[in-house]
Amino acid sequence: MIGLSSCAGVMEDLMNFAEEQQPSSPLANSWSKKQESNKNQKKKGVGGFVLVHAGAGYHSESKAKEYKHVCKRACQRAMDQLKAGALAVEAVAAALVELEDSPFTNAGMGSNLNLSGEIECDASIMDGKSLHYGAVGAISGIKNPILVANRLLSEAQKGKLSAGRIPPCFLVGRGAHDWAVSHGIPPCPSDKMATKFSLSAYTRNKRKMELAEKMDTGHNQTKKRRQSSENENGSGCLDTVGAVVVDLDGNVAAAVSSGGLAMKHPGRIGQAAHYGCGCWAENACNMNPYSTAVSTSGCGEHLIRTMLARECSAAMQSEDAHQALLEAMQNKFISSPFLATEDRVLGGIIVLRCCRCLEAQPSKNIQGILVEFLWSHTTESMCVGYMSAQDSKAKTHISRLPSGTIPGQSLAIEGGVCRLMSVVE
Amino acid sequence: MIGLSSCAGVMEDLMNFAEEQQPSSPLANSWSKKQESNKNQKKKGVGGFVLVHAGAGYHSESKAKEYKHVCKRACQRAMDQLKAGALAVEAVAAALVELEDSPFTNAGMGSNLNLSGEIECDASIMDGKSLHYGAVGAISGIKNPILVANRLLSEAQKGKLSAGRIPPCFLVGRGAHDWAVSHGIPPCPSDKMATKFSLSAYTRNKRKMELAEKMDTGHNQTKKRRQSSENENGSGCLDTVGAVVVDLDGNVAAAVSSGGLAMKHPGRIGQAAHYGCGCWAENACNMNPYSTAVSTSGCGEHLIRTMLARECSAAMQSEDAHQALLEAMQNKFISSPFLATEDRVLGGIIVLRCCRCLEAQPSKNIQGILVEFLWSHTTESMCVGYMSAQDSKAKTHISRLPSGTIPGQSLAIEGGVCRLMSVVE
Repeated sequence: MIGLSSCAGVMEDLMNFAEEQQPSSPLANSWSKKQESNKNQKKKGVGGFVLVHAGAGYHSESKAKEYKHVCKRACQRAMDQLKAGALAVEAVAAALVELEDSPFTNAGMGSNLNLSGEIECDASIMDGKSLHYGAVGAISGIKNPILVANRLLSEAQKGKLSAGRIPPCFLVGRGAHDWAVSHGIPPCPSDKMATKFSLSAYTRNKRKMELAEKMDTGHNQTKKRRQSSENENGSGCLDTVGAVVVDLDGNVAAAVSSGGLAMKHPGRIGQAAHYGCGCWAENACNMNPYSTAVSTSGCGEHLIRTMLARECSAAMQSEDAHQALLEAMQNKFISSPFLATEDRVLGGIIVLRCCRCLEAQPSKNIQGILVEFLWSHTTESMCVGYMSAQDSKAKTHISRLPSGTIPGQSLAIEGGVCRLMSVVE
Repeated sequence: MIGLSSCAGVMEDLMNFAEEQQPSSPLANSWSKKQESNKNQKKKGVGGFVLVHAGAGYHSESKAKEYKHVCKRACQRAMDQLKAGALAVEAVAAALVELEDSPFTNAGMGSNLNLSGEIECDASIMDGKSLHYGAVGAISGIKNPILVANRLLSEAQKGKLSAGRIPPCFLVGRGAHDWAVSHGIPPCPSDKMATKFSLSAYTRNKRKMELAEKMDTGHNQTKKRRQSSENENGSGCLDTVGAVVVDLDGNVAAAVSSGGLAMKHPGRIGQAAHYGCGCWAENACNMNPYSTAVSTSGCGEHLIRTMLARECSAAMQSEDAHQALLEAMQNKFISSPFLATEDRVLGGIIVLRCCRCLEAQPSKNIQGILVEFLWSHTTESMCVGYMSAQDSKAKTHISRLPSGTIPGQSLAIEGGVCRLMSVVE
């Protein structure tokens, strides 16, 4: 494991980089825009902010364009919802549908195939306002797993079922599929969800596995086999997707969706369907001054055992958001006692935190929400997109670890600030 | 929701009751036994402590005897393992097998049937030493789901699979079943797992549901239906089982197993297969002075959304164990903002916390472990059993809410202390 000093060095580099690029940094941009277009904002009175990710892993230059495109579309879709007056939870689901529909992401359409050559998806969603949560795991034959998770959330909000039965918040496998169909979500033939890319990756992975196992038989030493193959699992296939949203009433929501690790065992559930691990959203309350929303990506087992989404959400209640996330990623993830035996801890996270802010202007009927947004990852790269109601289009960015640093042992952290304005009638 | 004052009243009553019964209270008992049999302990040098539960729910006097019997057997089985030199995690799995094998508990054999008349089980186990975790959800046709969870835990401890693949910590459904069988755990025909009791409960519940739904159609008002039936779901079917163990090296472990809510939707996962919700175990470390182990029972969705096992485990690091558990049950469960819309919050918990203690005796080669053990529940009753290496047989107890208090709004809390002794060679 790398020490804190080296990790802080990485962060410093990135922060310096951000400072050099200040004209296009989200902080500067949003502030100046706010001052230009304050009058427009007053007229609108609806809006919000969305931050999405298309996974922490490795994004080659050739893939980068597609990933940025889908992030842009996802932001736009969430923003359209927000501008139409939707709550944060509805907007975050809309962003996820767009991310799932892309054949390039490892979620919904184009998901990784499991050991048996099947697609089994995980997805979850959390509403910071009601604190309700819905999740599906190892679900097959549904184009948009996030819609099932979202429907579970909204059904649970209606209260008990007949004969006093408590509605489920987490369904898996065939049962999840059948529940979805009985609630009007159409099934999708599994072969339509695989892509040329996912099928060829499966063939390639299968060959690699067979070769590795053949070599093992030769060596006949399980322990050695396991050690020797530790570095073969590239971080290229961890492109789970997710989003975090705040609406103009200050409600937050978070969601995540994943096809899971390539060649996973059938029935394996990753962090995307694990409460507290894949996503987290909590509106501000008596005890918490900030509303927070978090979505993760990366190696599911690492994110589960460290419960990263909830840990980071809790950490964001301390004063300095950037410092809090840096420390959480370092102490609760890379150096977590829960992952003491892992030599590389792979993951990424997007974070929103918001609070109401007093306006400098004298007008009493203007309410402002201060939105701080951050992303951090220990993988080689992470693709994010973000957009506020003030922006005409989403910004996208591929964050990369500085060259020479080791994925799984170092981290990158970046972010910005924007202010949302609304008129109180 | 009931206020803190009334809840404290309930606790006070129970504590007074415990004081009156002091000759048989665990605290007094263990202390006096320790003094009597200290020499025997020195000779043995192996042992530990086990606390089990056969669910929080409603235990009629007629059922009480059976529940106590199975708790006694489960304690004995764990103790046999500990005395044979097993680690806490092995002992806790042994206790669970005994609890699952009872046709009276809602776990393994005799589990509740789901909506389709099938048995689908959840189980998980956590090792406080390695912090590894294993879980299975909605698994059918396996007599002892805990053995699959335990095998997932031990397989994950071996490191990566071929081609660098990360081993799963949570498997569900058919995939979990097939993984179990391929790892030498024999399948069990589903019809052998149902009992006369579980089958007749299914028929009764089905009729009740059909009747409730027929009445709804008459009223044709979904909202009213849901409200009117809110109190029909008795807390009699929540008898999930679990155990917490500390071995003589001070390692803790926790496990939980459940057939889930009666008439649950196929594929529904309850707290018993949810990381942080069903069980939790963490050895003492730099940051935590105490080792803690926790296992829960009750309404899965309530236990999931409040992440009760982990919350209580974290709370137990504060000085007064009893006060910490009382406050956690009140503030993080009954009055949790995550369950703000629930009028009755149903659950129970068993807790162990341990620390090394200095011995009053001058001999330097004697090590002592101070074990504090507690249980608390908001259901009408909870059946527990406990045993230390000093005891010739396990003690069992059915804890009940005082008459007149409302289940789901009040709580009971009880417990004791014992000291384990070992000789350092």
